[in-house]
Amino acid sequence: MTIDVSRARTTAGIASLETAADVLAACDALAAISRSDSGIDRRYLTPEHAAANATTAAWLKAAGLHSWQDGAGNQWGRWCPKTLSSESEAPRLVIGSHLDSVPDAGRYDGILGVLLGVAALTHFQQRAEREGAGLPFALEVVGFGDEEGTRFGATLLGSHAIAGSWQPGWELLEDEEGISLGEALTAFGLSGQSAASASLQATPPLGYLEVHIEQGPVLEAENLALGTVTGIAGARRFAVNFAGQAGHAGTTPMALRQDALCAAAEWTLAVETLAREVQTGKRADMPDHSLVATVGCCELRPGAVNVIPGAAALSLDIRALDDAQRDRALEELLHQAHQIAERRGVTFRCEQTHAANAVACDEGLMQAVDIGIAATGQAPFRLPSGAGHDAMAVSHLCPVGMLFLRCERGISHHPAEAVTEADVARALAALIASIEAVAARYSC
Amino acid sequence: MTIDVSRARTTAGIASLETAADVLAACDALAAISRSDSGIDRRYLTPEHAAANATTAAWLKAAGLHSWQDGAGNQWGRWCPKTLSSESEAPRLVIGSHLDSVPDAGRYDGILGVLLGVAALTHFQQRAEREGAGLPFALEVVGFGDEEGTRFGATLLGSHAIAGSWQPGWELLEDEEGISLGEALTAFGLSGQSAASASLQATPPLGYLEVHIEQGPVLEAENLALGTVTGIAGARRFAVNFAGQAGHAGTTPMALRQDALCAAAEWTLAVETLAREVQTGKRADMPDHSLVATVGCCELRPGAVNVIPGAAALSLDIRALDDAQRDRALEELLHQAHQIAERRGVTFRCEQTHAANAVACDEGLMQAVDIGIAATGQAPFRLPSGAGHDAMAVSHLCPVGMLFLRCERGISHHPAEAVTEADVARALAALIASIEAVAARYSC
Repeated sequence: MTIDVSRARTTAGIASLETAADVLAACDALAAISRSDSGIDRRYLTPEHAAANATTAAWLKAAGLHSWQDGAGNQWGRWCPKTLSSESEAPRLVIGSHLDSVPDAGRYDGILGVLLGVAALTHFQQRAEREGAGLPFALEVVGFGDEEGTRFGATLLGSHAIAGSWQPGWELLEDEEGISLGEALTAFGLSGQSAASASLQATPPLGYLEVHIEQGPVLEAENLALGTVTGIAGARRFAVNFAGQAGHAGTTPMALRQDALCAAAEWTLAVETLAREVQTGKRADMPDHSLVATVGCCELRPGAVNVIPGAAALSLDIRALDDAQRDRALEELLHQAHQIAERRGVTFRCEQTHAANAVACDEGLMQAVDIGIAATGQAPFRLPSGAGHDAMAVSHLCPVGMLFLRCERGISHHPAEAVTEADVARALAALIASIEAVAARYSC
Repeated sequence: MTIDVSRARTTAGIASLETAADVLAACDALAAISRSDSGIDRRYLTPEHAAANATTAAWLKAAGLHSWQDGAGNQWGRWCPKTLSSESEAPRLVIGSHLDSVPDAGRYDGILGVLLGVAALTHFQQRAEREGAGLPFALEVVGFGDEEGTRFGATLLGSHAIAGSWQPGWELLEDEEGISLGEALTAFGLSGQSAASASLQATPPLGYLEVHIEQGPVLEAENLALGTVTGIAGARRFAVNFAGQAGHAGTTPMALRQDALCAAAEWTLAVETLAREVQTGKRADMPDHSLVATVGCCELRPGAVNVIPGAAALSLDIRALDDAQRDRALEELLHQAHQIAERRGVTFRCEQTHAANAVACDEGLMQAVDIGIAATGQAPFRLPSGAGHDAMAVSHLCPVGMLFLRCERGISHHPAEAVTEADVARALAALIASIEAVAARYSC
């Protein structure tokens, strides 16, 4: 990956974010803030985190907007129409995403959503100055300090803090150098107490809108720039083990084998078949077509060319918008695994390693996003999010909505993450129109 | 594993091998000759090799038999009936197997066959002294110095030497410490020239008989102690690769996936299905039921719970007595792999990593072994060998035959390798009767 430092420096040094080109240049500028010289790596409560916050604040201030960091290290900005009596008591719509990254990341995951929020606030600020036109609520933008969980393992720390679901136990989590989250907060000028006090539960916003790259191939396959997110799939993950009997590949007749890989292969195909049937509408009993299921790991023991596999360790990741249907599908897959194991004389075990329920987007905000997309000339298109987002945690604070933006080949969490300037321009226009649609509904 | 040193010491110190109990105690004594304290590890041209040769020679000498080491480090013993005019020109039948081991080995693989040979020579020597009864040929026993290839990678070095197929290029092979085979020969008091001169091509024996544990589960499943080997399967091995597209397990719909593991799973089951159909006689076009096929390795990239596998690296091991049929089966499997890959939008590549043709046992020696088994009261039973043996190399020198002995659960190359004393007694009786059957046929 090469970072276009010339473009980044120019942008980091100058003015407010107004156009898609400004936003992309700002993404490049943030990409240069990394603990690694060879790629993007920006973690919670690090010098890079502080630099990303300061840089984001500078763009907000360049537009004449107020910016501050909360007790959990999230960076905020605010625009309040002059028609509203008091800044602090005004109703507000929050636009946000995250400023942290995975290791060796792309430059748009999270960041693009924050910077489009900054650009949207800048738009409304400038329009108000120019035309006096306002909104019936204030706008805030938030750049969460941690969504990916790269440093401490636990994810969504920033959005949990504002949602009032900060867990004091997290302060004992350690990074790879043995520094606890509590110690890292202190070194950043914060504390567990300040993080907990970042909660907005006492004065919840009227809604939260997040723009994000899709991180999947659906919009590209549909030849569409934008999509309205219907919800964030709930995922369950399992460590799965088939145990048979290792044996000599030359001397053991087929009928006397207990081949763990063959059992695992049969089940892997059963997982794929069920998810395909659900997605193509062939399962009338499973009407939620968002279901996906993946076997991503397969490790064999002993794993030698001339030895029948004695054990196969797999992973299962299964996600859907409808938690109950996902769990019914899971039951069916576990039943099939037991049947395969019994028929083949091997054993089957599985252990859950992760579970999260689905989050539905707010219908009113979805309609506003539909209207925002339509304002760009594209027909509205709705799709689920299979990946997790800050909106999951924020949904416990207020209604949430999301706008997805096409990314090249669905690639994310990788330096090859890419978007087009035209799509970013459409996303900015759709976000602004969505905010106006929320305002129109709010005023009624 | 614990080695019964008390029993081993007793046997190593004393007399000739006459009974199954003697032979088992001798196996224990050799098991104590290991470069590792925690398991059996005896490699070519090491101090352990020299000690195993010397110990074997001592048992031969205790029975009044001549013993010598050849130019490749194989240890020999000889009994010549007094009726034959000259020892060196007499026709001879060779009984043998190997004295080296895999790392962390069992105590019977190879060794048991050598020591049963020593016991058979002892039997004929003692019977000749007692009763004057002889044979129409001399008997020789050989303990090969290398069959497993543990030290230098290349296998069957000892038997290749006597078969006249020693390759001078092997002398450049290095062990894990960088010592070349040539240097190791010199340190052992030998040389590449001496190894090549161990060839018996100028005066080939009339036949070679090898007793070996089955290293498979067939005899145990048949509830039989002994079996006559029909031949040694020829194996081909391949490194196989399916390459698709890695992707986010949550965001990529099933229809847009190019999942390398699913392709690999489908093919793994195709491999199993074909081999099962052949072994159960469902494929009239493939009458050689010895065919076995195994996928033993499966490594995924990136191999993460939330990522669709982008690449799957498998191994294939396919063996049969009939080389041409094995190659037809292989063609069919490769064709299926291409079809699966094409249908799934992934790529398929494969590369051969090993190829050996099958070796047929001599029909006359098989009949002699059948007679030998029948003499123990068991009905003769024939089976192929899926594992490789010294007889493969020796088949280029003279007719070969093999007697298989049941081992517990088919386990081999493992400290849990086990045989019963009753089975070893049956194997010794069958070997002696087989030699007599060869003599009866030879005299006709």
